[in-house]
Order: sequence, then C-alpha cells, then structure tokens
Amino acid sequence: MTSAKFPEGAIRCLDKGFVRLVDSMGGDDSIVQAARVSYGKGTRKVSQDRGLIRYLMRHRHTTPFEMVEFKFHAKMPIFVARQWVRHRTANINEYSLRYSEARDEFYIPDPEHVQFQSDLNKQGRSGKVPKELTEKVRNYFTEISQRTFEMYQELNEAGLARELIRAILPVNLYTEWYWKNDLHNLLHFIGLRSDPHAQYEIRVYSDAMATFIQDRAPFAWEAYQDYVVNGLRFSHVEQSLLERYLPARVINDLLEDLAYGITATLHNNKPREDSELYNLYQKQGGTDAQSDFHLKWQSGEIETGNVREMREFRDKLASMKP
Amino acid sequence: MTSAKFPEGAIRCLDKGFVRLVDSMGGDDSIVQAARVSYGKGTRKVSQDRGLIRYLMRHRHTTPFEMVEFKFHAKMPIFVARQWVRHRTANINEYSLRYSEARDEFYIPDPEHVQFQSDLNKQGRSGKVPKELTEKVRNYFTEISQRTFEMYQELNEAGLARELIRAILPVNLYTEWYWKNDLHNLLHFIGLRSDPHAQYEIRVYSDAMATFIQDRAPFAWEAYQDYVVNGLRFSHVEQSLLERYLPARVINDLLEDLAYGITATLHNNKPREDSELYNLYQKQGGTDAQSDFHLKWQSGEIETGNVREMREFRDKLASMKP
Amino acid sequence: MTSAKFPEGAIRCLDKGFVRLVDSMGGDDSIVQAARVSYGKGTRKVSQDRGLIRYLMRHRHTTPFEMVEFKFHAKMPIFVARQWVRHRTANINEYSLRYSEARDEFYIPDPEHVQFQSDLNKQGRSGKVPKELTEKVRNYFTEISQRTFEMYQELNEAGLARELIRAILPVNLYTEWYWKNDLHNLLHFIGLRSDPHAQYEIRVYSDAMATFIQDRAPFAWEAYQDYVVNGLRFSHVEQSLLERYLPARVINDLLEDLAYGITATLHNNKPREDSELYNLYQKQGGTDAQSDFHLKWQSGEIETGNVREMREFRDKLASMKP
Amino acid sequence: MTSAKFPEGAIRCLDKGFVRLVDSMGGDDSIVQAARVSYGKGTRKVSQDRGLIRYLMRHRHTTPFEMVEFKFHAKMPIFVARQWVRHRTANINEYSLRYSEARDEFYIPDPEHVQFQSDLNKQGRSGKVPKELTEKVRNYFTEISQRTFEMYQELNEAGLARELIRAILPVNLYTEWYWKNDLHNLLHFIGLRSDPHAQYEIRVYSDAMATFIQDRAPFAWEAYQDYVVNGLRFSHVEQSLLERYLPARVINDLLEDLAYGITATLHNNKPREDSELYNLYQKQGGTDAQSDFHLKWQSGEIETGNVREMREFRDKLASMKP
Repeated sequence: MTSAKFPEGAIRCLDKGFVRLVDSMGGDDSIVQAARVSYGKGTRKVSQDRGLIRYLMRHRHTTPFEMVEFKFHAKMPIFVARQWVRHRTANINEYSLRYSEARDEFYIPDPEHVQFQSDLNKQGRSGKVPKELTEKVRNYFTEISQRTFEMYQELNEAGLARELIRAILPVNLYTEWYWKNDLHNLLHFIGLRSDPHAQYEIRVYSDAMATFIQDRAPFAWEAYQDYVVNGLRFSHVEQSLLERYLPARVINDLLEDLAYGITATLHNNKPREDSELYNLYQKQGGTDAQSDFHLKWQSGEIETGNVREMREFRDKLASMKP
Repeated sequence: MTSAKFPEGAIRCLDKGFVRLVDSMGGDDSIVQAARVSYGKGTRKVSQDRGLIRYLMRHRHTTPFEMVEFKFHAKMPIFVARQWVRHRTANINEYSLRYSEARDEFYIPDPEHVQFQSDLNKQGRSGKVPKELTEKVRNYFTEISQRTFEMYQELNEAGLARELIRAILPVNLYTEWYWKNDLHNLLHFIGLRSDPHAQYEIRVYSDAMATFIQDRAPFAWEAYQDYVVNGLRFSHVEQSLLERYLPARVINDLLEDLAYGITATLHNNKPREDSELYNLYQKQGGTDAQSDFHLKWQSGEIETGNVREMREFRDKLASMKP
Repeated sequence: MTSAKFPEGAIRCLDKGFVRLVDSMGGDDSIVQAARVSYGKGTRKVSQDRGLIRYLMRHRHTTPFEMVEFKFHAKMPIFVARQWVRHRTANINEYSLRYSEARDEFYIPDPEHVQFQSDLNKQGRSGKVPKELTEKVRNYFTEISQRTFEMYQELNEAGLARELIRAILPVNLYTEWYWKNDLHNLLHFIGLRSDPHAQYEIRVYSDAMATFIQDRAPFAWEAYQDYVVNGLRFSHVEQSLLERYLPARVINDLLEDLAYGITATLHNNKPREDSELYNLYQKQGGTDAQSDFHLKWQSGEIETGNVREMREFRDKLASMKP
Repeated sequence: MTSAKFPEGAIRCLDKGFVRLVDSMGGDDSIVQAARVSYGKGTRKVSQDRGLIRYLMRHRHTTPFEMVEFKFHAKMPIFVARQWVRHRTANINEYSLRYSEARDEFYIPDPEHVQFQSDLNKQGRSGKVPKELTEKVRNYFTEISQRTFEMYQELNEAGLARELIRAILPVNLYTEWYWKNDLHNLLHFIGLRSDPHAQYEIRVYSDAMATFIQDRAPFAWEAYQDYVVNGLRFSHVEQSLLERYLPARVINDLLEDLAYGITATLHNNKPREDSELYNLYQKQGGTDAQSDFHLKWQSGEIETGNVREMREFRDKLASMKP
C-alpha cells in the first residue's frame, strides 16, 4: 500500500484519513451580530457576548448559530461516509469513482478497535478480543483490500468502465470530500457523532471537527456542551418517578438554598443596604425568620452563581413538588 | 365585514380562521414499518408497536417519523403566517395578492387577548387591561381594517396593479394556504408553537393541528408528549446544583426503590420461583438483606412499570451520585 | 447465493433488486387543488386540469407539485444507494448493518452491461467487450462476493462487532430502504437519473419509479416530459450561433406559418364570421395580403394547436431576428 | 418620518431600504477547488478555471457552486420579505416586533412605479397612470403609514403587548434581516427575482445582490448569464414546430458552417499541416469536396469559437433533422 499524504493543518483520523478546515465564515461574534438584529437595538448595551450566546443556546434560539459556516476537507472510509452523508443540510463534493481511478488506500483497524458485538447495545462493540482472532480480522481486511485492488487495477488497465468495476471494492476503501455546513447543524452532527453510542470510526472525525469549532467559536462550543451535550433530561415518565420518590422536604431544602444563592448573587452584582437584604431574600421565596436569615447569611456557606440560571432551576424544582 | 365560511371538518381558529386536514399519508403503523427496515427482520417479533414508537422517540431516532405526511389547509392573519413560514421543511401554496383580489377579512382580537407587554418575558403579554383601553385597541383594529380595505377597493376598481396596492393592507389581514409537512417536523413545530411562550395567535393553530395528529398517530403523539414536551431537562449547570444539594442518601433511596420496582416488573412479565427472586433483586443493585427483602416484597407497596425506562432512570440517578 | 424474494407489486431492478410503491398522497388533482389556492377562486372556472398542470410546469411554478408525495421501498447495491442518497430532500430509512446481519445478496452484472470506459464521456461506458473479458469481470464479482461473505460470516459467528466487520463487504452488496419524496423533487431525480448520461444501474431504478408516477399523476408526468426532459435548450452562446446562421427569411417563414396556426386555432375554439378572420390573422402578426390569406386559408394545410404555446414560440422566434 | 440611515458599503434599494454584503466565503477559485476533488487529480492540469466553471454550469453540476457562501444585511418592506422568505435554503435572522418596537419607516412608491394591473400578465403591472391618480395612491400610502404608526405608538406607550399591536401595521412597513445562502441557491434566487416577471420591489434587491456576486465570483456569474438566464429553451412542443418549419437544408447549412468553425478552432489551438486539414474537416462532418474546402478556407469568413460548445450545438441541430 502507498503511504497516504496529509495536507498541512489536517488532523489525522484512523490509519490513513484526515480532517482539515478549508475555510470558515464568522464565529462567536457573528452569532451575536445576527441575534442583535432580531432583538433590535434595545438590548444592545446590556448583554455581554458570552452571556447572550449562552442564553440563545439555553433557549434553543438556533437561527443565529446558522450564520456561521465551516468548510472541511476530509478523507474517510466509505462506510464512514455513508453515515456522514445522512446529515442533509450539508453541501458535499465527493471524489468520483466514475471519473477518476480508485486509489490504493483502505482502512485496516488498529488491534484495540477490533472488538466483540455488544450484548447490551445492539449496535455497538465491547470487550477484549484474543490476539489471534484480532490478527485474523486484520488479515482478512488486508487480504480483501489487496485482492480487490489487484482485480480493479487489472480490469481498469483492460479499459473496462470504471463506474462498473469499482463495484467490487469494499467499503473500507478511502474516499474524500469537501463538506460545508453551518454551525447549528454542525453542532447537531457532533452531538450525535461524538456521542459514546456513535461508531468509533466516525467519532474520530467528529472529534477532529470539534477541535476546529472550539477554536473558532469557543463560547458557542462551551454553551453547547453545558446545555445540550452534558445536560440531564428526565422524561415525563422518569419525572413522575422522581416526584414520587423525592420527598417534598428535600425539594424545599433545595429551594431554600436557592433563595439564599440568588439573594447573594444579586447583592454581589449590585450591593444592597443591610436593611433591604431580608426583603430581597423573601422575594426570592425564602421562608426563614429574619434572625435565622442573618445567622445563615454570615455563615460563609452561601454560594453565588448566575441569577437567571438559578431562577430557571428553581422553577423546575418547584414544578416537581407534589 | 363579510361572514367567513368554514370548510367541512375544519377547526375554527381566532375570529375568522381555521385549520383542516386535507390529506395524510400513514400513521403509527408506518413509523413502525419504516423502523423495522432499519433494524432488519431480527427484531420483528419482539417489539410491540407502541413500545417501539416510544423507544424511537426516547432515543431521538427521528427518521421513521419523517415517513408520515400531513397536508393542511389553513387560514390565518399575515402576522401569524410570517412566524409559521419560518419552518422551512414544509411545502406551501399560499393565496397570492399579485394574482387575486384581497378579501375583506381581518383579525380583530377578542377582549380577553388584549393584554399588556410582559415585564418578565420580553416577547410575551400578561395582565388585565382596563375595559376602555381594550375597546380602544379593538376600535383601532377595526378602523384600520375598514379604512385600508376601502382604499384598496377604490384603487383596485381604478385598475391599479394589485401587487402594489396590497402594500397598504395591515398584517391582520387573513391569508390562506396549503401546508404539507412530515410528522417529525410537524411535532417539532407543535413543540415550539404550542409552548406557552409562543404567541397566542399561532398557538391556536398549532393546537388545532395537534388534534389531527393525535387522531392519526396517537402513539407517536403520546410519546412526543412524554419524552419531549413534558420532559424535564437539567442543564450541565443545573445538574451540578442538583448534585450539590441532593444528598447521596436521597439518591440511594431512589435507587433502592427502583431495584424493587424492576424486580417486581420482571417477575410480573415472567414469574420466578421464590428462591430466584432475591438473586434477581441483587442483580438490579438491591442491597437489602434477604430478610428485609422479603418483608418489603410482601408489603404491597412496590410499584411496577416499564423495565427499560426504570433502568434508564436508574443510570441517570447513579450518574448524579457524588 | 440465496434467491431473493420480491414483494408483491414490485418492479424488478438489476439481478436481485426492486422498487415498489408503498404509499402515495395525491396526484394530478391535488396539484390543481394547491395551485388554485394560490390563484384564488377567480380562475377556478376557466382552467382545465390538464391545461393548468402544463401551464405550471412550463412556467416553472414548482410548489404545487410539492403537494404530492410518494413513498417507495427499494433494494439496490450500495454503490447505487450512494448516488441516490445525494438527493437531499428525501426522507430515508435504510437497513442498518450495525444492528442487523448482512445478507448474502450481491450484484453481478449481466454480460451486456459489462462495457469499456467511454472515451467521449469521461464517466460513462461504451463498446462491446470480448466474451472472455466479460466472463473474467463476472467471475471477479462472484469471487469477491463469495469470499467476503464467507469471511463476514466466520467473523460474525465468532461474535465480532458487526459495525466493524461489515467494512470488508464490497459496494455491490444489496441494501434496502424506504424512501419518501415529493413529486417536484422526484421528477427532478428522474430527470437526472433516467438521463442517458446517468449510470445504467441507477437508471433502472429511476425508470421503475417513473412507471408509478405515470400511473398516479399522468398529466404531471406528460408535462414534465414535454417541457423539461424533451425540451431543447440553447445557451446564450449557441443562440448567437443560431442567430448568425439562421437567415431572417427563415424566421419570417416560421412566424408567418404561426400567424395562420394561431388564427385557425382561435377560430376552431370560437368560430368567427368570415369577415372577421382576416383581421384576426393580422392581429397575430400575419402580413399576407387579403387575397393571399384566403388562398392559404382554404389550402387545408394549416395546422392548429395550443394558442398559448404557439404564442410563446412566436415570441422566442421573434427575439432571434437580427 | 425619520430619515433612514444606510450602513457603509450598502446599495440603496427603494426609498428607505438597502442591501449590503456582511461576509462571504470563497469565490470562483473555491468552485474550481471543490470540482477538482470530484474529478480527482487526473483533470487538474488541463482545465482552466473559467473553462471549468462554464463546463460545470452548462452541465448543471451544481454542487461546487454550493461551496461558496454569501451573507447579506438587508432592509425591505414586509411584502417584499414575504416573497423573499419562500427561498427555503437560506438562513435568516429577522428584526422581531415581539421583542422590539416598530420603527417609523414605510415604503412609499415613486410616481413612476405606480402602474395599472397588467392585462396580459395576471400578476404584473403596466401602463402610465394619470398624475392625479398616482398622487392619490401615494397619499393613501402616506396616510395609512402615518395613521397606523400613531396608533401603534399610542398603544405602545400605554404598555400594550407589542406582539399584538403590531398587527395593525401595514405590509409596506420596513423590516430588516441577516440572510445567508450558498451561491447555487443565490443564483437561482436571482434568476427568478431579477426576471422581468418578478415584482419591481423585490427585483431591486435581487439586482443589488447580483452586483456583489459579480464582484466576488465573476466567472460563475458570467456562466450563469450565458447558460441559464439568457439561454433559449424550446419545449418538446415548440421543438416539433421548429422541426416542422425549419427546412432540412437550413439545418444542413448550419451544420456545414459548424464543421468549418470547429476545424478552424482546432487548427488555431494546435496548428496542423495543410495536408491534414481537409481530413480534420471531414471528421467534423464536413461534406464539401476538397477543392471547395480550400476555397472557403481561404475566404476569411470562417469564425472560430469554443470547440466543445460548437460540438454540443452541432449535436442539438443534428437531432432536429427530420
């Protein structure tokens, strides 16, 4: 097999593939720019870029993220391309085996990625495979790659139609393409394809693209991680289990702590007179008596955070009380 | 103003609008049919239709829901159509004011929907408006509707180009269209537009379409409600607040109850010998001693459910333990 | 190899594939129905269904054709699926080799479709291949299909992950899917894939789908053939060559014949007094003297047609006169 | 009315609107770059950029044009935005009248654009309107704009919900948005909206965007004009009229001239010995005797061009011979 060449700035993926960023348009600043058209000039002063981006992500206002565009050049096995192409919003130009000759580049898995079919996850793999069996798999990959390529070359030299004879080549053959997508749909792609349930061989490409996004739109990337990827979602069914088992007194404790947290954060942002503080705390739903309030207030145990996020959390918790 | 006519089977929306189902293709059964192509024949026997649909929804396998198609005929004010049209996967044929004459049909809000700008929700409305102010609003709507339509009619009779003179008509003018979409994207539309944060005037149309979906694809509708609309989502940020405040002992109690619940459900589905039960319970992560186990087992307080759902809930809870 | 089974009503494609219509929504009548919403009630009486559909197609009013939906079940080799999937408006559910086992079904080309690479058309095939070379190609297809499937089966029985070991299977392996699209995009697909430049192996599927369309929407199909597929397009460049070489007198002859044709057709549709006929002819741009007019008029050589089409043709011809 | 402000670099459209290019990604060179991935390295040396782009456009290979992206900021009346938004591949962020206050900016047509409803073209305008009637139209536009804005302001100051009271504003109110699209779909937009049949008020925006495209992707723009916009298309029906009326001898003359033209062009590109020329001419389908050939060859009347284009034209003409 010939040794594959990697373009400058590309991230290597699998044994002979890569992803590189060809071009991009915009980043965090253009998300903000687009969002501010929607909201008009009114909100222009208040919001900070990072806060606005996090707000948009939290509330699924997706259109501003569509204003950023990325174009990648990638080289990957056909079976990876087949999963990838299902993301329909992208624009694609792929190497054509009708026009051009196939190249002698096939994916041979590293020993550690040769695994058993998972029992639990019907579409995954798991477990450690004995060395001899691993080598058999790799030998089969190599044998088929070599044998089909020999046949292909022989038939190609005999002048046969390339669009037909390529049909004997296996799906571990490398192909390559230009692939362009907007940031919203790109994050959706990465959410699905960098997920542990995704097939390893596409995950490495998704992870590589993520690196470029993190570099060009770091706030959008961070917000996506915090609000979409790492979020915890309870279905209606699970929620009723949670409500059933979570005693109201536990929820009340959480709500009480939040009342302190919100008060402290508001006070930090815009300091209040001592006399106003208890009032403010009560407005946040706090139910302690004034004397208890001052005791806890001076305990040094109250944690601050983001007011809007704490309020949204409070509303969710309150909705779970029987 | 002329009295509007409603086609048979239409659901009335606002004062002069409607939604009616013109045609549809498929329902719950075609979701199942499409999913089974993906999974091959292997899973054909085991799954029940409802269970499979709920599984697909829970795991965001959206493509089978795209196999069902709905076509609606709707009549709504232009400002509603302007929000509606942003859902880009739909096919649309709208009444054209370049070809055809405008009709004397304008939206006048009912008194109860005349409200103040919300302080909390920058794009919503709230509060009760004094009667005189409400009447002023309604009078303004009526005055402008009548005045612009008189002008339009006069200019139209003078032979002026309709594509130009329609530009003086206000966005409360009714328009109508045929609108066709697949079930996946339709549910997404309804998720956004039947949400309490959506504008009242589009919500009534979204709710009306929901009625037709519920009739044609009841399992898909139910699953969407349970897993998407009524789900409770904690962001990464909220999750750390939850983890911080939720004592490990509370989580342990929940996990313990789940071990009983899963055991009981498995036993219900396929009855076990008494001697096997404790073993089964331990496999579900139960930590009670054998004597305690039998005590609780006979208490009559153990609730059964869906094994898969309870296991997924258990994993989420376990992931929250510090 | 096992013998493939064909579902009822399916059209066989290649050696082991098929296309069948699973479901459809609407036909010619729903194109008309949707178009009439756009044009309002005003035009409801005049137009005939067929005429309206032809008008819409001729003027590229594509949205009414999007109101018709077709869902197919198809089985085809992977290399065909790879071309097919590039049509991004469709909804797809494909057999998954992550979940399910590969089946022993591979495409082996018939001898007559084994051809040489075309010299003229860089992506096509042409010519007749000697019998021995043809047999070599077919033997290679068979050998690779059998060898890879044996390997796959051995590794599958050893419990290896299916998502990995499928990577040695060649792209002549059959896959299958449900594929749903609207009529506008379906006609576009067929326009490209039933074209003589398309690869033979996808053309048979495109032609098969065309059969079902012709059955369900015969007017739309006919109009598509007449105005899109069989149309003759001259580019700006070619047009200037045409103008340069086509003498004005030839164009004048064509225009003259058209003036007669339009007059005769109008007269057929709504008979005129003899005295009005010459006037009518002059209005169509006819320049013959009255005596000559009557001579030709009675010659029996004047052909009638569709007035609107003849007028459009006249305008195009007139635009070519130097 | 307040005087509208125009951002730097914007092209003014109508009385208070504009279009400006916010950002773009790629141009002619990235079309070529993407196309060359599809064709592989084989064709890299031969093709010139301009020629390749023209080839792609001529043969409707649209995907490389999707690799270029444009983002515009535009301000236009709502009735223009309503036509514009129907192009569904674009990404949009629009000024929201739920969040933000309406601004006192309304479209008042210039006198020359106040016209009558066209008789011929059911959706167009034509003719010259008497001065008094023109002024009446403009006065009505002004009256309604002022009156509705007064009402809106009064109700807004009284604190009423903006999402509701905006419903009395007419569709000549200006809105604005960010709008992003790829070059292929942008050219399609311009093909439809810069067409003489498009409404004047959207045409000015389409023409303005065209200026920016012409600047960033001049070859793609030129090819689009030559092969799509200014092309002449004969339908199947017209083609048979053409075939019927165009005498075979005229077609033969055209073919003969083309044989000379192609020969001369090939000779220009790569000079031949005198002895080879007649042979070459015969290969192009020339039927003159050798003596006649030399006579014409030296006449100085033979025009050269692009070989590929002349050959395609020849094939089309040949297909028209009875």
